[in-house]
Amino acid sequence: MNSFKVKFLPHNKEIIVADGRILIRAAMDAGVHINASCGGEGVCGKCRVLLEEGELEGGISEKLSQEDVDNGYRLACKSKVRSDVVIRIPTESAIDTKVLAFQSTPRKTAHIRKMDFEKLKKDGLFSPPVEKIYLELSEPDTQDHLPDVTRLVSFLQLNHNEHRLVVDMKVIRKIPDIFREADFKVTVTLMRPVQEGRRTHIINIHPGDTTDRNYGIAIDIGTTTIYGQLIDLISGETISQYGEFNDQISYGEDVISRIVYAEKPGGLEKLQKVVTGSINKVINKIVTKAKIDKDYISTITLAGNTTMTQLMLNVNTKYIRRAPYVPAASIYPPIRASDLGIDLGEQVAALVYPQVSSYVGGDIVSGVMGSGMYRTDKLTLFMDIGTNAEIVIGNKEWMACAACSAGPAFEGGGIEFGMRAAKGAIEDFSIDPVSYEPMNITIGNVRPRGICGSGLIIMIATMFEMGLINNMGKFDRDIDTQRIRERNGVYEYVLAWKDDAGIDRDIVITEIDIENFIRAKGAIYSGCQTLLGEVGMSMADIEQIYLAGGFGSYVDLEKAIVIGLLPEIEHEKIIFIGNGSLMGAKMAVLTNRVRKDVVNVTRSMTNFELSETISYMDNYMAALFLPHTDMVQFPKLKARMEARIKERKRING
Amino acid sequence: MNSFKVKFLPHNKEIIVADGRILIRAAMDAGVHINASCGGEGVCGKCRVLLEEGELEGGISEKLSQEDVDNGYRLACKSKVRSDVVIRIPTESAIDTKVLAFQSTPRKTAHIRKMDFEKLKKDGLFSPPVEKIYLELSEPDTQDHLPDVTRLVSFLQLNHNEHRLVVDMKVIRKIPDIFREADFKVTVTLMRPVQEGRRTHIINIHPGDTTDRNYGIAIDIGTTTIYGQLIDLISGETISQYGEFNDQISYGEDVISRIVYAEKPGGLEKLQKVVTGSINKVINKIVTKAKIDKDYISTITLAGNTTMTQLMLNVNTKYIRRAPYVPAASIYPPIRASDLGIDLGEQVAALVYPQVSSYVGGDIVSGVMGSGMYRTDKLTLFMDIGTNAEIVIGNKEWMACAACSAGPAFEGGGIEFGMRAAKGAIEDFSIDPVSYEPMNITIGNVRPRGICGSGLIIMIATMFEMGLINNMGKFDRDIDTQRIRERNGVYEYVLAWKDDAGIDRDIVITEIDIENFIRAKGAIYSGCQTLLGEVGMSMADIEQIYLAGGFGSYVDLEKAIVIGLLPEIEHEKIIFIGNGSLMGAKMAVLTNRVRKDVVNVTRSMTNFELSETISYMDNYMAALFLPHTDMVQFPKLKARMEARIKERKRING
Repeated sequence: MNSFKVKFLPHNKEIIVADGRILIRAAMDAGVHINASCGGEGVCGKCRVLLEEGELEGGISEKLSQEDVDNGYRLACKSKVRSDVVIRIPTESAIDTKVLAFQSTPRKTAHIRKMDFEKLKKDGLFSPPVEKIYLELSEPDTQDHLPDVTRLVSFLQLNHNEHRLVVDMKVIRKIPDIFREADFKVTVTLMRPVQEGRRTHIINIHPGDTTDRNYGIAIDIGTTTIYGQLIDLISGETISQYGEFNDQISYGEDVISRIVYAEKPGGLEKLQKVVTGSINKVINKIVTKAKIDKDYISTITLAGNTTMTQLMLNVNTKYIRRAPYVPAASIYPPIRASDLGIDLGEQVAALVYPQVSSYVGGDIVSGVMGSGMYRTDKLTLFMDIGTNAEIVIGNKEWMACAACSAGPAFEGGGIEFGMRAAKGAIEDFSIDPVSYEPMNITIGNVRPRGICGSGLIIMIATMFEMGLINNMGKFDRDIDTQRIRERNGVYEYVLAWKDDAGIDRDIVITEIDIENFIRAKGAIYSGCQTLLGEVGMSMADIEQIYLAGGFGSYVDLEKAIVIGLLPEIEHEKIIFIGNGSLMGAKMAVLTNRVRKDVVNVTRSMTNFELSETISYMDNYMAALFLPHTDMVQFPKLKARMEARIKERKRING
Repeated sequence: MNSFKVKFLPHNKEIIVADGRILIRAAMDAGVHINASCGGEGVCGKCRVLLEEGELEGGISEKLSQEDVDNGYRLACKSKVRSDVVIRIPTESAIDTKVLAFQSTPRKTAHIRKMDFEKLKKDGLFSPPVEKIYLELSEPDTQDHLPDVTRLVSFLQLNHNEHRLVVDMKVIRKIPDIFREADFKVTVTLMRPVQEGRRTHIINIHPGDTTDRNYGIAIDIGTTTIYGQLIDLISGETISQYGEFNDQISYGEDVISRIVYAEKPGGLEKLQKVVTGSINKVINKIVTKAKIDKDYISTITLAGNTTMTQLMLNVNTKYIRRAPYVPAASIYPPIRASDLGIDLGEQVAALVYPQVSSYVGGDIVSGVMGSGMYRTDKLTLFMDIGTNAEIVIGNKEWMACAACSAGPAFEGGGIEFGMRAAKGAIEDFSIDPVSYEPMNITIGNVRPRGICGSGLIIMIATMFEMGLINNMGKFDRDIDTQRIRERNGVYEYVLAWKDDAGIDRDIVITEIDIENFIRAKGAIYSGCQTLLGEVGMSMADIEQIYLAGGFGSYVDLEKAIVIGLLPEIEHEKIIFIGNGSLMGAKMAVLTNRVRKDVVNVTRSMTNFELSETISYMDNYMAALFLPHTDMVQFPKLKARMEARIKERKRING
């Protein structure tokens, strides 16, 4: 794909963007503020910019006069970059070139790590769980009337050095007809044992040579969404993927309400059916997309939190939510997928990721495996922030983990206009340092309907940096802007006036929202601190951070440090692994090595119940500030803020 | 039970019988002929005997005059022995004391071998497949919130040195509630691996201490009848047993007609359902009889011929009846009983006995295991004569086996009045050497309706010994009795006149019947000879014979030698093992050693297709005589017959 240089004046900032990038997003990427209220739908007309050089696609709107258009004015939110361009932000948008120094920093999202199958092989971590072998057997006659299965097994022993074979019942049922239909030329599918010395199962047989068709499925059973990938076991490639709501949502949004439902008569069985129904939707979608025959699928791995796992396996979840919070099991035996109601052939064994505790589940273990954290020397902080927040600290030698009672603020919960990362959610934001006008960018470039988690982080960090709120999250009562107001005794900032909004109200962020948000980030940060403290270490010892969860991909690292969610660390050392649960599930589909290692890894993960850890409450109280009471932990931020205050004083005279 | 001495005059023969033995059967046991046509129903009145000393119960009939009764005459078929007695056979029944020398020999049935659990243990063959352990676990608290399953497994590792444990999914589902219901005091059921080094499965859990309740089931899937035993795994005792027709009979009497039915659309699935339905009837009967809870049943072993096994497992039987007669498999993996439709809990794994070939199946392998043949040094001939006849020759070092195309003569097939061993079947027989009047004894002591297999052997042997038929099975045309007659050009002997019979016809045995019978016994004998010949041995090398099958228990060994079904061997060396298939199934329920050994034993059994073995036809032709063309193989019989001829000449002058 082509990429182009975009230069913003008078800031004199440059950024390289991909062909077709929307101009207002390019500005945000570069850390250039442009007033924008309507999220990018093109209705507020505030993001008027002047195209000085190069070409833009679109950007002409009724919000602009013909004269403006003729002079090169465009709406930034409706323009796509199609060449190198030079863009001038008009003074009515930027107000005063003096304040350019206060502009937001460019977006710095984490480096994305993807799974590298070839590297996996190179590192000796590849030990295929499923293999196919094509065989040309001799036909029986009056001198040789070996039983069909014996003929097969003997041939494999003699010609392929395959021993300790078990032929599954379903395969035995197919063999007599397939042998004769295919003139004794067949392909067998072998399932390798995870532990050496155990037996290889022949789990399927096909007429002719089908060795080029060999697939597995990885599933992440999220409380909200179920993701699936269809994986080619030969190339290691994901050939199709799909996400679908977990239909259990109708029975409760979070795990606790699901457990409550499961305690009703027939509730557990109902939820089991519902979740497998959703899993089946995902499976059928990825299979249809890839146009493959389901009979070539040989393995499925599923990862989910403890509640999702137990519900999927039809195991009573009652004791998960009752002290002392005991899950049914850590490690589950492989189980036939069809026995769970999963719509795959009897040949498919389902491997379920193990759980550490009631609130550190298979999704986290899967993330630890998928990210490679369990193989690293470096002291690593693994964070998965979703409906719940789980953290793991450690390296290949040891690991400590905990679930943080962060609440759902990062998914918009407990925030008046909070919402999931869906169309209309403000996902990016900046503030004009002088006029305090906002720059709202929404998912889907439509009028704002609310604020999603990553937007919230940017918003609160920006307001803190710009001095709109103090380190306790309270608005500066002295700032002269109608966007900050008091309503029912609570201060709030108006992000979008009703006219610019996608709903029939002003969209605001209140001090209560900010307080809830600070509690959430404080719970996570103090959780990390507490875990480290328990092993005699501190935040300064962390060598790298793995961010898992859909959330992590959009988080502006700088901003996450500013609010005190992440410790102050070089950006290069923060690695986004995406859906860690799905990644680990995929790894286990591809190699038995992971299936084997996961047992020891799970055992080595020491779970801490933070509420029962004495130091936790102190750490938590200290973290209820932006970024923290102890600024020594954020030396660079501290320096930057002091410089900024000095600069502002200098400008303001 | 009391036993009494019965003395028969004028023969001067004595026999010890159990209290209540019917007098006519006591006479047969002693080899004393009493004329009797009506099978023991008391209607022909021919078995009139004089009680000289002691007491009989019953025997008074309208067939006897009051004077006869007062003088001590009784009907032998209606009298029960209740003390030591002296009985005189009246001259009109015995005709001539001169002929006493020709009396039949006393019945000599084979020694019955039963399974000895204590000996099994002593011989080091006991390695229990299922064990139960009672545990008192500590309860979780805030300091100890191990997952439930981890708590269980750790306790077993630490306190019971149990390693490599797998907890089955069904057990995991039960654990959370049972732990709390039983205050963490539970009994677990462990299924041991057959191969050392493999894993022990926890297959069940119960609240409290249930270690005293531990059961298994053994099933013999016969083509005609399904037998089941419920076995106490602690004592080794069979606590209840039951036999039930295999309802597949409605779809064909023999295996071939079942296979034909299975080839129809839906036929295989239908027959699978029908046979498991019959198995379930047996299981529910033995469980109800024993008044136990099915949840304490942990294992089931099934043995059947190759066709029965494949039908039960829903495996296409089509190729069993087509050259080159290839079965689907030899060894089947363990399969969950409930997956087969067997009405037992999910904890129960079904073990199915392996097959050697299409016509030497799991019932035979099971007999070889159950009889201990696979552990003996002695060259052993194992014979299972039922709907089909299978033979195994060998010892612990080697085994050769074959199926004989004997046809169903031993079950009454191809015999005009042949019938199964049911009520009214003539099961014992003798002939007056002078009058040629018969002594018929029937199952149930009712009027004769036909002849069963064991009766047929005795009948033909007796007729041969008495000179009624020659060594080709042809009646002596010169004998002066109306019982031998020609009908439609075929000679026959009238066993029961219509008036004495339980059906509305004379009951006869014809030369065609005898010819069919000789072909059947010839096929078996020559099968044994051929197998021995293939390994360079002869009948004379046989050190012992194991007779399996319901048939074997009633066979008069002497008579079976006379007709040339069994080789001439000391009676003590012929051991009846009863239902060998059921015995082997029971052994496998009780010890893993058998489950392990059976794999090697099955592999070591070399199958011969007799029809493709060159020497077979010669051997067969030579065996189509009574007892055989080669009398050198029957030296004692030859000597006895020569003596008898001499004696008859002497008497007849």
